[in-house]
Amino acid sequence: MIMSGVGGHARAGKSSLAPAFDDAFRVELEALLRWRRDVRHFRRDPVDGALLDHLLSLVDLAPSVGNSQPWRIVRVESAAARQAVRASFEAANAAALNGYEGEQAALYARLKLAGLDDAPVQLAVFVEEGCAQGHGLGRQTMPEMLRYSAVSAIHTLWIAARAYGLGLGWVSILDPDAVTRLLAFAPSWRLVGYLCLGHPRFDQEVPELERAGWQARTDGSARIFVK
Amino acid sequence: MIMSGVGGHARAGKSSLAPAFDDAFRVELEALLRWRRDVRHFRRDPVDGALLDHLLSLVDLAPSVGNSQPWRIVRVESAAARQAVRASFEAANAAALNGYEGEQAALYARLKLAGLDDAPVQLAVFVEEGCAQGHGLGRQTMPEMLRYSAVSAIHTLWIAARAYGLGLGWVSILDPDAVTRLLAFAPSWRLVGYLCLGHPRFDQEVPELERAGWQARTDGSARIFVK
Repeated sequence: MIMSGVGGHARAGKSSLAPAFDDAFRVELEALLRWRRDVRHFRRDPVDGALLDHLLSLVDLAPSVGNSQPWRIVRVESAAARQAVRASFEAANAAALNGYEGEQAALYARLKLAGLDDAPVQLAVFVEEGCAQGHGLGRQTMPEMLRYSAVSAIHTLWIAARAYGLGLGWVSILDPDAVTRLLAFAPSWRLVGYLCLGHPRFDQEVPELERAGWQARTDGSARIFVK
Repeated sequence: MIMSGVGGHARAGKSSLAPAFDDAFRVELEALLRWRRDVRHFRRDPVDGALLDHLLSLVDLAPSVGNSQPWRIVRVESAAARQAVRASFEAANAAALNGYEGEQAALYARLKLAGLDDAPVQLAVFVEEGCAQGHGLGRQTMPEMLRYSAVSAIHTLWIAARAYGLGLGWVSILDPDAVTRLLAFAPSWRLVGYLCLGHPRFDQEVPELERAGWQARTDGSARIFVK
């Protein structure tokens, strides 16, 4: 069932008290983060239309600099558009393969990096550079904040989709300028992410790249510093 | 209580079945997204050290290109470092004010944009450009994927903190190069976000910039396109 923000434990009505989350919720949230995964293997059955609409409405809850909401999302539905994106992936993938040697290249080739053939939903997420909304607040010294806001929107979708049992895969082996020319509705748009979305063929707690021997996760304490 | 990924409804042990989330969880997750907020007003009481460590461990569950985990997090604790960051904020804030006129400038001045004075925890999140982990996968045509991975880490922290009742505020009115010179531990690091973290003085469902009349959220359907 598609849930809207009413009722339940958190009791987050429009003007009601703020939600207080409990340990049971935190355990489930951590499980969601642990099992999120970058999904590459999708079943071909469609995603319910009302659910997709709901997930896209949740994207709008993402943080954005100056409340600019600069993300622009294109649902890539036509066969022609999908085929053009796939061709961009294949060209970039072939070029990337040239950069690796021997065993690493073989591994790379075996990794099925794109769900482009199977994912029933494909979304191109753009940022509108210089968008008027937000009046420029918070992005004078860090103009990249607009792009970062679009990334937060993608991550919001990722998490929300997983809560409904859907998997998302972010395809970055693409020529972003070519994909922008293909799919953007305005010249000020810039591609941030091309996303595959659908029912995952299987759930995994361990990232595919770790299972494939490409790159394991490493000790997080090495990433924390104090000053 | 600090929850680790065991037990509870999702039952996500290391090698157990994948979690299946239910409607009650989805309602709470949506409430969390709705009430997340970019927090600027903090109480000064400290954040429990074990909780902060736990939240930082959850950051490592964020998605990253090629499983590169390129985020580097500096806990800014010394008075000297905090004062230097504050000075960078004040300079950038003064310059930003010059770009606005009349009523908008007055509003801008009234917005207390930084929790820098009160937030008990301050974190500078960097990306390590060109980091070896991940072997370059997925970032040949889109090298910005490393920075975007660090943004996902920030958003993961944001959500996890909120589940524990903590607020996060992202300060982007800063000179990122100056802050990098101040706080980075390696020349390959680049500032992605400077974060304030602590107990919010109050909870709000409506963004502060909307309440202040700066920028309301707008209709999300205008951001969705089909091709």
